[in-house]
Amino acid sequence: MDVSVTLADRSVIMANQSDDITSVKGHTFTGHTFQHYSEMNLDRIYMDYNATTPLEPEVIQAISEALQDAWGNPSSNYIAGAKAKAIINQSRGNVARMVGGKAQDIIFTSGGTEANNLVIHTAVEHFRRSCRAAEEGEGRQNGSNGLPHIITSNVEHDSVKLVVEHLQKVGKADVTYVPVSKMTARVEVEDVIAAVRPSTCLISIMLANNETGVIMPVQEICQRIKSLNQQHERLRILLHTDAAQALGKVRVDACELGVDYLTIVGHKFYAPRIGALYVNGPGTKTPLYPMLFGGGQERNFRPGTENTPMIAGLGKAAEMVTSNLSDYESHMRSTKLYLEERLKAIFKDKIHFNSQYSGSDILPNTCNVSILGPTLQGWRVLSNCRRLLASVGAACHSDSGNRPSHILLSCGVPSEVAANALRLSVGRGTTKADVDAVVEDLRETVQLLEVMD
Amino acid sequence: MDVSVTLADRSVIMANQSDDITSVKGHTFTGHTFQHYSEMNLDRIYMDYNATTPLEPEVIQAISEALQDAWGNPSSNYIAGAKAKAIINQSRGNVARMVGGKAQDIIFTSGGTEANNLVIHTAVEHFRRSCRAAEEGEGRQNGSNGLPHIITSNVEHDSVKLVVEHLQKVGKADVTYVPVSKMTARVEVEDVIAAVRPSTCLISIMLANNETGVIMPVQEICQRIKSLNQQHERLRILLHTDAAQALGKVRVDACELGVDYLTIVGHKFYAPRIGALYVNGPGTKTPLYPMLFGGGQERNFRPGTENTPMIAGLGKAAEMVTSNLSDYESHMRSTKLYLEERLKAIFKDKIHFNSQYSGSDILPNTCNVSILGPTLQGWRVLSNCRRLLASVGAACHSDSGNRPSHILLSCGVPSEVAANALRLSVGRGTTKADVDAVVEDLRETVQLLEVMD
Repeated sequence: MDVSVTLADRSVIMANQSDDITSVKGHTFTGHTFQHYSEMNLDRIYMDYNATTPLEPEVIQAISEALQDAWGNPSSNYIAGAKAKAIINQSRGNVARMVGGKAQDIIFTSGGTEANNLVIHTAVEHFRRSCRAAEEGEGRQNGSNGLPHIITSNVEHDSVKLVVEHLQKVGKADVTYVPVSKMTARVEVEDVIAAVRPSTCLISIMLANNETGVIMPVQEICQRIKSLNQQHERLRILLHTDAAQALGKVRVDACELGVDYLTIVGHKFYAPRIGALYVNGPGTKTPLYPMLFGGGQERNFRPGTENTPMIAGLGKAAEMVTSNLSDYESHMRSTKLYLEERLKAIFKDKIHFNSQYSGSDILPNTCNVSILGPTLQGWRVLSNCRRLLASVGAACHSDSGNRPSHILLSCGVPSEVAANALRLSVGRGTTKADVDAVVEDLRETVQLLEVMD
Repeated sequence: MDVSVTLADRSVIMANQSDDITSVKGHTFTGHTFQHYSEMNLDRIYMDYNATTPLEPEVIQAISEALQDAWGNPSSNYIAGAKAKAIINQSRGNVARMVGGKAQDIIFTSGGTEANNLVIHTAVEHFRRSCRAAEEGEGRQNGSNGLPHIITSNVEHDSVKLVVEHLQKVGKADVTYVPVSKMTARVEVEDVIAAVRPSTCLISIMLANNETGVIMPVQEICQRIKSLNQQHERLRILLHTDAAQALGKVRVDACELGVDYLTIVGHKFYAPRIGALYVNGPGTKTPLYPMLFGGGQERNFRPGTENTPMIAGLGKAAEMVTSNLSDYESHMRSTKLYLEERLKAIFKDKIHFNSQYSGSDILPNTCNVSILGPTLQGWRVLSNCRRLLASVGAACHSDSGNRPSHILLSCGVPSEVAANALRLSVGRGTTKADVDAVVEDLRETVQLLEVMD
C-alpha cells in the first residue's frame, strides 16, 4: 500500500504541473530540434510525434517574418496586400508539390477537422444535388432517392467518425463502417467494394492509422472504385483520404493514390496548427461545396481573411517535406527499429507489439507496444515514467478514462493487452540515446509497478 | 492623353509590384509600430486599419514564445500539453474580460467568418429543434411551422450577408434586410422591431459598420427584443452582433449590450488572424450547435486541435485592449479629427464626409471621404497616390471593380459621391505628421487628376 501511495503521489505531481507552467521552461523536451537545456538530470523525452510535432526552426522563421512583414490584408489592392497574397500563393504551390497536386487544388483550412468535415459536407450536398437533377428529368439514373451512403472504416479519427455518426443520428446519411481485418489491421479492399450501394456517395479511408501506424490500401480502393464509377451511369463515388498521419513520414501522392480529396494537417509534419484540403480540380473535376460563406477568399470555397503567417509556415514545412522526406523517413525508421530491438532485449516475451501485422506496411515512426502484466496499464506506466512523454492513443481521447483503445480492439488486440498499450512515436530528431533513456525509464517504471503485482 | 497614359502606367506599376515582392522590404509602412525605414523618400503611409492591423510587438512576442515552447497538444496528459492548455485558458480569460464576459463564454474560432456562420447555423438549428419539440406535443407554441426568419441590416459584412442570402436561396430561411436610415446610416430600432415575425429566430446587427464607422443601436434593440421574448410564450429571438470593427476602438461590453452572441475578430485589433465567439452561457443559457465534429476541443462546440500560438496572441492583444482602450480611443479620435480638419482646409467645399451623420456615433478611427470631381473616383485617386495606402471599402470587395459601394448608397450617399469615396482609417500609431503627409499626397494627386477634367 505504501508503494501505491507513492505511485499515486507521482501521478498527482504530474497533473499539478499544469498549474505551475513556468516549471516547464526548466525541462528539456529532447528528441526534437528545440532544446531548452535543463539544469536537472531528468530531461523529458518526447515520443508522441503522432499527437503533435514541434515546429521546425525554418517554419518558425517563416511565420515570424510574415507576422512582422506580411500583415497586410491579402485582399487589399496595394503592395501590403500583394505581398501577403504572394506568400499565400507560394505556400499553395509548396503544399501542392508535397502531395503531387497543382496549386489550384489546395484550399487552406483551419485544420484537419475542418478539412474532413468539408469533404463529408460536400459529398452529402453533391448527392442531394445529383438526386434533384435526376428528379428534374435530366435523365440521370443514380438508382437512389433515399439517403446518401458513406463508407468509412471503424478506425478513423474522430473528425471523420463523429461527423458521419452525427449525419446518421440526425437521419441525413447512411453509414457503413467497414471493420479492419483483425489479421492485418487494414480495411481490406474487397470489404470496401462489398459495402458499395447504389446510393454510396463517398468513401473516406485514412491513409495511415494514428495509433497502429498501419497504412491502408487507399490506392487499390481508388482503382477499384474508379472502374466502378465508369461502368455504370451511376452516382459518382467520391474518394477521400485523411493523410494527417502519413504526410512527412511516407511519400504521399494524391494522383498516384487516385483520391479526389486528401486532408493535410500541419501540426503533424512540424508545421503550424492549420491545414489544407487537396481537391482534384475543385469545382471543376471534383465538387466542393463550402460550409462557410463570406468575403470570397479561397475562391469562395473557404472564405475568411487568410491566416498569412500560418500559411507561410505550412508552405515552408511542406517544402521541407518535399526536399527531405527520404532522410526523415529513413531516420525515423531506423530509430523505431532500434527502439523495438531495445524493448525486445529488455522485456523479452513480456512484450507485444500492436503495430506489427503480417502483410501490412506501418508508418516508419510508430511503435505501439504493450508491456504485459496486471499492473502495467498504459496510463499507469506513463504517469510513472520520469522521462518519457507519450500517450496511450489519440490525444483527443486523453480524457476517455482508462478504457483500452477501441482502435486496438478493432485490430484484434486482446483487451488486457490493449489496456497496456503505449503509443511511442518518434520524430526527425529522436536519437538512439533518447531511445536508450526511454527504454531504461520504462524498465525502472515497470520494475516499480511490478512490486504491486 | 499623355497624362492619362502616365496615370495608367502608374497603376500598372502598382499592380505589378505584387510580382516583385522583395521590393516591399524597402518600403516603410508608417503609422504603426513596425517600421522598416527606407532609403527612399516615398515612405508609404498605411491608413487602412479597418481592413487589417499589424500585430503589436507584445502580441508577436506571445505568439513566438508559444511557437517555441507551447507546441504540445493541449489534449495531451503530460506537461507539454498542460502548458499549452494553460496558455489557452489564460487567453480565454483575457478575451472574455475584453468583452465583459466570463471565460466559459468564449469559443475560439478560425476567425470572424466562422464565428458569424456558426451563430446563423445555430439559430436555424435552434428553430428546427424548437419546432420539432412543439410538434412532439411539449405544448410550446412558437406560432410557426414554416421557415426560420432572420433579421439583419442591409449594410452587414459578407460573412453575415452571404450566409443568410445562401439560406434564403436554398429555401432554408426567410430573411428581412432592415435598411439603414438614409439620414443616420443606422438601422433604426423601430424598423427592426417592426420586422419581427412569430418565426423570427435571430437578429444579427453589426456593432459598427466597416465603411462608414457608424455605430448601431444594438443595446436598444436587445432591450426591446428581450421584453418581447418575455411577453409571449414564443420562440426566443436570439441576438447577435458582429463586433469586428468596434473592438479595440470603443468600449464593448456584451452584458451591457444584452447580446447572446458577439463576434470577435483578432486582426482588427492588432491580434492574429483568428477569432472567437462570445456566447452568453453556451449550451446552457444560450444554444450553440457545432458546425464541425471531431476531437472534442472547445467543449465540442468547435473541435480541432487548438491553434495555441494564435490563441496566445489573441489573448495578449485582448489584454492590451482592456488595459489601454481609452488611450487608443482618444489617440485615434484626435488623429481622425485632425485628418478631417486638414482635409476640409485643403479641399474646402470639394469634400463630402461619408462618415458623418447627424445623431449617429462614429468609430473614432474611421474617416470615409469623397473628394468631388468627375475624375476623382476613389480607385483612381488611390492608385495614383504616392504614399497613402487605403481602400475604397471593404477589402474583400477589392476586386468588385469600380462600382460605388453599396454600403454608402444604402446610407444615402449619392452615386457620384460614393464613387469617389476613400475609406481612411487610422490606427494606434498614426501621427499628425502622417496625416499631413497623406493630405499633401491627396492634394498633389487630385491636382494631377484634375488636369484630365
